[in-house]
Amino acid sequence: MAMEMWDLAAADETVRFSPYCWRIRYALAHKGLKAETHPWRFTDKDAIAFSGQGFVPVLKDGDHVVADSWTIADYLDRAYPERPLIDGPQARALTNFVRQWVQITLTPIIMRGIMPELFAAIAEKDRAYFRESREQRLGRKLEDVAAPLETVRADLKTALHPLRLALGSEPFVSGAEPAFADYAVMGAFMWVRCISRHELLEEGDPVFLWRERMLDLYDGMGRRAPRANG
Amino acid sequence: MAMEMWDLAAADETVRFSPYCWRIRYALAHKGLKAETHPWRFTDKDAIAFSGQGFVPVLKDGDHVVADSWTIADYLDRAYPERPLIDGPQARALTNFVRQWVQITLTPIIMRGIMPELFAAIAEKDRAYFRESREQRLGRKLEDVAAPLETVRADLKTALHPLRLALGSEPFVSGAEPAFADYAVMGAFMWVRCISRHELLEEGDPVFLWRERMLDLYDGMGRRAPRANG
Repeated sequence: MAMEMWDLAAADETVRFSPYCWRIRYALAHKGLKAETHPWRFTDKDAIAFSGQGFVPVLKDGDHVVADSWTIADYLDRAYPERPLIDGPQARALTNFVRQWVQITLTPIIMRGIMPELFAAIAEKDRAYFRESREQRLGRKLEDVAAPLETVRADLKTALHPLRLALGSEPFVSGAEPAFADYAVMGAFMWVRCISRHELLEEGDPVFLWRERMLDLYDGMGRRAPRANG
Repeated sequence: MAMEMWDLAAADETVRFSPYCWRIRYALAHKGLKAETHPWRFTDKDAIAFSGQGFVPVLKDGDHVVADSWTIADYLDRAYPERPLIDGPQARALTNFVRQWVQITLTPIIMRGIMPELFAAIAEKDRAYFRESREQRLGRKLEDVAAPLETVRADLKTALHPLRLALGSEPFVSGAEPAFADYAVMGAFMWVRCISRHELLEEGDPVFLWRERMLDLYDGMGRRAPRANG
């Protein structure tokens, strides 16, 4: 039986924009695994109640149900040890650091850059939930989250500097080959790509060039992904 | 023949304060290796001319001369593979990311916190060189680098948030056991400790607790280290 994955969808159900779901889409491709994806909206809590929680990605692999992208990555490496997403105990802790760095450093900047397009792209039925949950988390109105694109680009350029330097010596965040740390960062950029028509990186930036390599992986899976506002 | 290491010293030659030298002091202790250390000042370029460059740490191991803390870490793992500082190719790239993050994110904040004490602690003969090289690098007078301690503490607290979250699931940056990524971060905190009488972290902060564990390592090597302005 093929795996199944519940995957956040926009109003247009072909647009799959969750940074956390993208991590798992890349993780599955990394291992050569296929999953049937179910489009899921923020308010479809009932559809994933079987997972014991209310967020995607949720992966169902036979009798195994796993939620949360970090937990799913662990599950995939245990169940399918070939071509590890994380190749050892140090890499595991350090990949966790990268994922926290993405969450704390990149996500808030990107959110300011894409918020108006993000709110426009999500399903009608998700809007009240999205507004309420995000305004509570962010402590302000969605309309006050957005920042001018030039500010977002400049802030992102500064925030990405450690990554830029690391990419000066290796083609991928994880070294010679991409692995879960790359997918953790790439999730954030797929979130931008699927939602926004704007470019947040400068052409020629080592991070731009890394993202190009990532977009090419697995037969251009990221590059071919449907985009809202495209 | 014992290894030798050239190690940056303050006016008081027992005070060894270089964050990069501390990475290697910890790396050597990690492997159970001993080195005779030579106190070195910024202007003692002749004393390390044999290394083909002008900065410490420099490690001499028999016929091998290695400079630069990252290159030395690689050398140590190749020459003494037991108890690796970096345990695989992913860990290597990710440790490099952590080291860049320290350099870009933490170092400038810490420098603003310790600059007056740092300038007071270095050897008399180093002062003109230190002022000229740092003012050129920083683009301003040393006196304009310092920031109020409360600002430094707040900025550092914010900058450390990804590390704080990562330390929520593991005792060390590198996981269950400390390794080179820990030493790369700890170098920055030993720089503070050896130079400044001020505490930049809040007691109870997971990063504070991690630093306590690091200070305890290897018979309290870091905790016992002589401090300027102590």
